[in-house]
Amino acid sequence: MDSIKSGWFSEFSPLWPGICLSLEVEDVLHKEKSDFQDVMILKTKSNGTALILDGVIQCTESDEFSYQEMISFLPLCSHPCPRNVLIVGGGDGGVAREVSKHPDVQLIDQVEIDRSVIEVSKKYLPFMSQGFQSPKLNLHVADGFAFMEKCDQKYDVIITDSSDPVGPAESLFQHNYFKLMRKALKPGGIVCSQAGAVWIDKHTVVSTFSHCLKEFKSVAYGIVSVPTYPTGQIGFVLGSLNPDTNFKVPLRKFSDEELDKMNCRYYSSDIHASAFVLPRFAVKLLEDAKRGDISQQNGKTVK
Amino acid sequence: MDSIKSGWFSEFSPLWPGICLSLEVEDVLHKEKSDFQDVMILKTKSNGTALILDGVIQCTESDEFSYQEMISFLPLCSHPCPRNVLIVGGGDGGVAREVSKHPDVQLIDQVEIDRSVIEVSKKYLPFMSQGFQSPKLNLHVADGFAFMEKCDQKYDVIITDSSDPVGPAESLFQHNYFKLMRKALKPGGIVCSQAGAVWIDKHTVVSTFSHCLKEFKSVAYGIVSVPTYPTGQIGFVLGSLNPDTNFKVPLRKFSDEELDKMNCRYYSSDIHASAFVLPRFAVKLLEDAKRGDISQQNGKTVK
Repeated sequence: MDSIKSGWFSEFSPLWPGICLSLEVEDVLHKEKSDFQDVMILKTKSNGTALILDGVIQCTESDEFSYQEMISFLPLCSHPCPRNVLIVGGGDGGVAREVSKHPDVQLIDQVEIDRSVIEVSKKYLPFMSQGFQSPKLNLHVADGFAFMEKCDQKYDVIITDSSDPVGPAESLFQHNYFKLMRKALKPGGIVCSQAGAVWIDKHTVVSTFSHCLKEFKSVAYGIVSVPTYPTGQIGFVLGSLNPDTNFKVPLRKFSDEELDKMNCRYYSSDIHASAFVLPRFAVKLLEDAKRGDISQQNGKTVK
Repeated sequence: MDSIKSGWFSEFSPLWPGICLSLEVEDVLHKEKSDFQDVMILKTKSNGTALILDGVIQCTESDEFSYQEMISFLPLCSHPCPRNVLIVGGGDGGVAREVSKHPDVQLIDQVEIDRSVIEVSKKYLPFMSQGFQSPKLNLHVADGFAFMEKCDQKYDVIITDSSDPVGPAESLFQHNYFKLMRKALKPGGIVCSQAGAVWIDKHTVVSTFSHCLKEFKSVAYGIVSVPTYPTGQIGFVLGSLNPDTNFKVPLRKFSDEELDKMNCRYYSSDIHASAFVLPRFAVKLLEDAKRGDISQQNGKTVK
């Protein structure tokens, strides 16, 4: 928690050595060591209120909407009728806020491991934690992995809104987790998981994508722009049990009027399709992963 | 030039107050005060060699390709036959490198105001300044604005690869500059200009887009991901004298084999099209600009 110096918060991480984003701090609204991680809420000068976990920016008021909308609507709009949804993680409430907007969704289970994140979000991030007020939502404070072991063919869509693959979220990036999700899905079910940034963390992208390929019949990797994340973007891996799912073509196309009503500031059907159009170097990376050209050695991606 | 402290370079700018990207420095390879700006070359730990002008990152070895490819191929592939091309700025040689790859291009004039940038790029950024070796290229050290005043219907495509709209590049973001470019273009000619990032600099985006709208018959704003630029992306304004130009559909579609041969790591026809698919908040911003709802008051964008 010594990440604030001379009025600036700096985001150092072994996941992106040699690069650091800093935000000028107006006020430290909260900091604590929860049972799982360091939790901090900052009032920044440029980006509004920000949630920091273990020294890493999770969301800022200025740009959280792009991430929340995309991790929610990419899978939801790729499913013909997403009635029952499970959210793993997402303790700030942002994903619950977006998922509850979808008219087909009837029931949302959410399982977040860290009660402290929920509590500070309710207090300091009302624009996100409003998601917890949805009558569709059942919020469980528990380990997502353990929670899902008890589920069998229960959900149409499972969204994993985790922090990075170090600390409490590590297990959510493993092969076993994708197996568990497959079991917890109804036939034709869809998953969407935070899966690393292709410019900076090829290992996480490739390994998550490969796990998903092993368990799901149709798989894609999509990108969203989030200025306060490292490299300014992050990716999602999506998998479907229906081999005919084409993630690039949303089944549910909301009109501009509907998107306005849902206060979607980033997502549209066009943006949905374009999220899966990747730069050539990323296309090649995932093609290699598909062909199994990439083997895993000592946790590093080698070709 | 006091932007390096404790082995880290930090990019502070009044254009993005309260946010700062820092790169760990292995070595300061060069620094000087040229006739126009502070010029610095850093060897960074994470991103290879980097060119810094007036304290702002212009390009790093790790990610410059996305910017250079897109600012070049978006306009070139939107033109039916881009024979004569003018590059304004681009003193690192990266745009010349890309433009010279296009098989239709026969002649490239480039006008860069700062000889020092060319010299340090030749010495420290050979992967970019290789562009200066093209037999198609005539390199002029001069003011782009003054250079173009003498041109009349000479070019098929004009690419403006400038630094940000403070300092030597300021005039390249003004309405008069778009008038000049129109005059220097052959019938059906196309321009592409660096035009600010939509997450952080709405004023530059809207004003550049509006200037372009006044002078050109078909206009679009496209986005490219550049991790070491503020917000991780930057935008281009493109304008065509041909009202039938549809920037979203490239006229020239290179095959994968051709793109491999040209060493394109970011650009493809699909990426071309998707660059113009904008998040809803950006669509609305530009629609407002089109409708003229936005008036300029004291240099600030007000609605």
